[in-house]
Amino acid sequence: MIETPPLVDQHCHGVLRTELGLAGFEAQLIRSAGPPAAGTTFFDTQTGFAVRRWCPPLLGLEPHCPPAHYLARRRELGAAESGRRLLRGSGVGVFLVDTGDVGAPGHDGHPGHPGHHGDGGDVCGPGELALAGRARAHEVVRLEMLAEQAADTSGTVAAFLANLAGAVHHAAAHAVAFSFGAAMADGTGYAQALLRAAEPPGPGEVRGAADRWIAGRARGGAVHDPVLLRHLLWSAVSSGLPIQLHTGTAPPEALTGFVRATAGLGAYVVLLGGYPHHRHAARLAAAYPHVHADLGPVLARTGARAGAVLAELLELAPFGKLLYSSGARRLPELHATGALVFREALGRVLGGWVTDGAWSWRDAHRVAGMIAAGNARRVYRLDERD
Amino acid sequence: MIETPPLVDQHCHGVLRTELGLAGFEAQLIRSAGPPAAGTTFFDTQTGFAVRRWCPPLLGLEPHCPPAHYLARRRELGAAESGRRLLRGSGVGVFLVDTGDVGAPGHDGHPGHPGHHGDGGDVCGPGELALAGRARAHEVVRLEMLAEQAADTSGTVAAFLANLAGAVHHAAAHAVAFSFGAAMADGTGYAQALLRAAEPPGPGEVRGAADRWIAGRARGGAVHDPVLLRHLLWSAVSSGLPIQLHTGTAPPEALTGFVRATAGLGAYVVLLGGYPHHRHAARLAAAYPHVHADLGPVLARTGARAGAVLAELLELAPFGKLLYSSGARRLPELHATGALVFREALGRVLGGWVTDGAWSWRDAHRVAGMIAAGNARRVYRLDERD
Amino acid sequence: MIETPPLVDQHCHGVLRTELGLAGFEAQLIRSAGPPAAGTTFFDTQTGFAVRRWCPPLLGLEPHCPPAHYLARRRELGAAESGRRLLRGSGVGVFLVDTGDVGAPGHDGHPGHPGHHGDGGDVCGPGELALAGRARAHEVVRLEMLAEQAADTSGTVAAFLANLAGAVHHAAAHAVAFSFGAAMADGTGYAQALLRAAEPPGPGEVRGAADRWIAGRARGGAVHDPVLLRHLLWSAVSSGLPIQLHTGTAPPEALTGFVRATAGLGAYVVLLGGYPHHRHAARLAAAYPHVHADLGPVLARTGARAGAVLAELLELAPFGKLLYSSGARRLPELHATGALVFREALGRVLGGWVTDGAWSWRDAHRVAGMIAAGNARRVYRLDERD
Repeated sequence: MIETPPLVDQHCHGVLRTELGLAGFEAQLIRSAGPPAAGTTFFDTQTGFAVRRWCPPLLGLEPHCPPAHYLARRRELGAAESGRRLLRGSGVGVFLVDTGDVGAPGHDGHPGHPGHHGDGGDVCGPGELALAGRARAHEVVRLEMLAEQAADTSGTVAAFLANLAGAVHHAAAHAVAFSFGAAMADGTGYAQALLRAAEPPGPGEVRGAADRWIAGRARGGAVHDPVLLRHLLWSAVSSGLPIQLHTGTAPPEALTGFVRATAGLGAYVVLLGGYPHHRHAARLAAAYPHVHADLGPVLARTGARAGAVLAELLELAPFGKLLYSSGARRLPELHATGALVFREALGRVLGGWVTDGAWSWRDAHRVAGMIAAGNARRVYRLDERD
Repeated sequence: MIETPPLVDQHCHGVLRTELGLAGFEAQLIRSAGPPAAGTTFFDTQTGFAVRRWCPPLLGLEPHCPPAHYLARRRELGAAESGRRLLRGSGVGVFLVDTGDVGAPGHDGHPGHPGHHGDGGDVCGPGELALAGRARAHEVVRLEMLAEQAADTSGTVAAFLANLAGAVHHAAAHAVAFSFGAAMADGTGYAQALLRAAEPPGPGEVRGAADRWIAGRARGGAVHDPVLLRHLLWSAVSSGLPIQLHTGTAPPEALTGFVRATAGLGAYVVLLGGYPHHRHAARLAAAYPHVHADLGPVLARTGARAGAVLAELLELAPFGKLLYSSGARRLPELHATGALVFREALGRVLGGWVTDGAWSWRDAHRVAGMIAAGNARRVYRLDERD
Repeated sequence: MIETPPLVDQHCHGVLRTELGLAGFEAQLIRSAGPPAAGTTFFDTQTGFAVRRWCPPLLGLEPHCPPAHYLARRRELGAAESGRRLLRGSGVGVFLVDTGDVGAPGHDGHPGHPGHHGDGGDVCGPGELALAGRARAHEVVRLEMLAEQAADTSGTVAAFLANLAGAVHHAAAHAVAFSFGAAMADGTGYAQALLRAAEPPGPGEVRGAADRWIAGRARGGAVHDPVLLRHLLWSAVSSGLPIQLHTGTAPPEALTGFVRATAGLGAYVVLLGGYPHHRHAARLAAAYPHVHADLGPVLARTGARAGAVLAELLELAPFGKLLYSSGARRLPELHATGALVFREALGRVLGGWVTDGAWSWRDAHRVAGMIAAGNARRVYRLDERD
């Protein structure tokens, strides 16, 4: 067996504080524009089967028990106690929590309940997650949220730009990373925006775009203007904090310009997601010193196939450039399933290579520790923070 | 062992009634723009090896016997008797037969011998296939064929459009699905056409395009005009019948617009082919309720690798959204090989997950039944038809 | 065990004659725009692990020994003796040597030390490689190098074009193949250039481009003009010699036009690289008689995953269309690792299919011989040359 240290989950969200029925639970499992096929449920997916494999034992049930049994047991224990058991059972030592929750599955592009900083929303913040999971937690700040908050609180374009700059500066001092692109990553315009992101917009361009956006915006309105998005991204680059970049369904070529332009500027770029283009993300991580690839939610989403996907990432990605995350949001089941699927897949893949003689035992252990925690500890300077 | 019910082969073609020599047989195995490499034959492919594995035993020979032995035995039995043994040995209970055969391998884009409705061509129709295979069969109507037939029999543009509308309406009443794109799917213009397919063309646009096409067309001429193709596709959407969409080599992004535009309109879309972009097809099936993915000819084409490709599709595709097909045409060997490769691969992949503890036995059985037959029975309403 | 004949390494480069320290060695392992992640080295990659697995035993050490031990032993033996042991241990019988070395890793796009024809540079030529490896060697001529040499030695545009034509003609008589695209393959403009390569430029266009290039060029300057590049490529097509085309990171669609346009013209096209688009390369090799796919450096680059990548290529590529190469340059360790990884992966993949009953033993042996050597012997007419 390959053993790993307590994991760093380098990108996740808070969990719901509220109790969930079967339908409410199921709706959080999968991102879909509508209902499942007739006669099936969202449990009839690799994610559903993986949740049913790994979570029931953490609540004292048999693996693969029927969803209704599981939900009944979950209600019996209560959301808080179930959450504690699941998070503590995940083997995660540090959660990096994106506090800009962009909404429930099925509502891509529409901001949901932010619930950041434990503000009373129904999604808990980093502190509460740490307590529940008996772990540490640090905040990842969603860049678009800073723009929306600055717009909500600024009377003029000049004030907006100054407040935004202040917010980025402030976040850079207390957060461990910025995240970017979550709400747009599956939209058709995102790839276009990334393609133009190879250089920052000029100051006049930014003022013009801010002017138009603020004039036409209702309170809480999301930022979609491509000039403002590029301005946000490049503000983050200047701050020096690592940037977690959602790659969504953008073709990998769309990333090349930004990645080249930011080489040597001092900020790490961590590519989130990217499946089924994950091999491209691994290739970029090999070619550019500042680029890292995220194992991400694809492991929990592909369940029984997680080892195969992990192995594909391990083809080209240097072992110092891959980072574990769950991408989990709202259901602590997803935090736990991500972590347990990852450990099992990592052990199976690296252990297999040791058995074949392709890798040494010592090397496999060292690489497992790097992917599970060491790389994230270095990228996010966690040893300086804990 | 994972057992499956009798399969529904949701997309195949009729078989040749004529006897074949070695060269004629080989020419039907693979689609290629020319001859195989010197010193090799088209049997030196995964398809060739898979046919040699699975078909000889159905005719009383050893697996992997030399092609010449196999062909000699096939001639000895005769095309009809060989066809019966192969089709009955496939374990298929229902064939959905595309009656618009777009030609032999190597002649992409040029219409071949339609042979539909048992019209005396050398390719048999659904009824004859059902009889030979001791199975049921239903017709899948190729949309482009309706346009070509309407053009052949109409004197004016107005008559053409009216006849086409009537033909679509008539087909929707007796066929189980429409198919679209077979002849074009590997052409460079197809991706462009799909990209523009996110909305139907206007009536004036359609009349203009029909006018130009009919004026310049020789009898039997194929439809390539992008406006008419979009009109065909959207006529099918309006009919409510499922649409089998050949994805060919179009990049998956080309499909997104059409898929989004047709969500919620009531017609299922079944993506045919797509390898090596099959993971994208699975992702679309996960994201959109009306989208389904086809296992398709890739299983027989990749032979010993069919399990690996099937497993990739099973990463993201909801289990209620994958459908078996052979994509076979002309050679009953391809119908049989597709089915036997599929069963073996499905058993190996799902059985492996059960052995690993990732899936329960009960779940694996249920999912196998869904992919083998249940999903197709639901999508094509086969229980109402049998 | 599947046995293979002595390999033909159909695309590699010469090896360095100079001794290397640990840092110098490591810098040749991986192509990267900068240093490895903090706390890691370029050995922390699949390539590094594969080199540590396969090379130490050839120098009398244990597999997986620490890099510093390996380098000490290498220095003890000397670069020449180490090179002999590594090359002879590779099991390669024929090296096809690209004499246009486009530079060390990390310097893409900048011409390095050409070192061709044993001209006293630090990289050895084919003759020396043959002697060291107790093998045969033939030259592959880089097309761009011919243009640069012609420009260095011509006073006028007319002389340049005549000298270039002469050089292509001369190379076609003594070399086994042309290579194209190495320096550009990862550049953003390469895909664009390939897209336009579906037809040769006109003579006036070529003269104009040559005029501009030569006027603005310093001695030794590289050719980047898209018209001249197309002219080079089509000059090679006319010569009838096989063309090794670096596919780099160009999307596979970029290749389709050129491949279609050159079908039936008599010159073979061998697609080099292409990972992670290698399945597309295999598909093109299936669809077009003159197209071949290269296993290439991806095997040594993916190390423990080489079998998985090889298996993906074997899905669609006809078995007469796949060719082994190492893509190795400068380090004889890369020539040896490529060959040993390939043999092991081929034996594992084909042997597994035999064990499963999917392939016969006899077929597996025949296919192994084709990929290892037979296909390359045919494409490059080696039996007429040896």
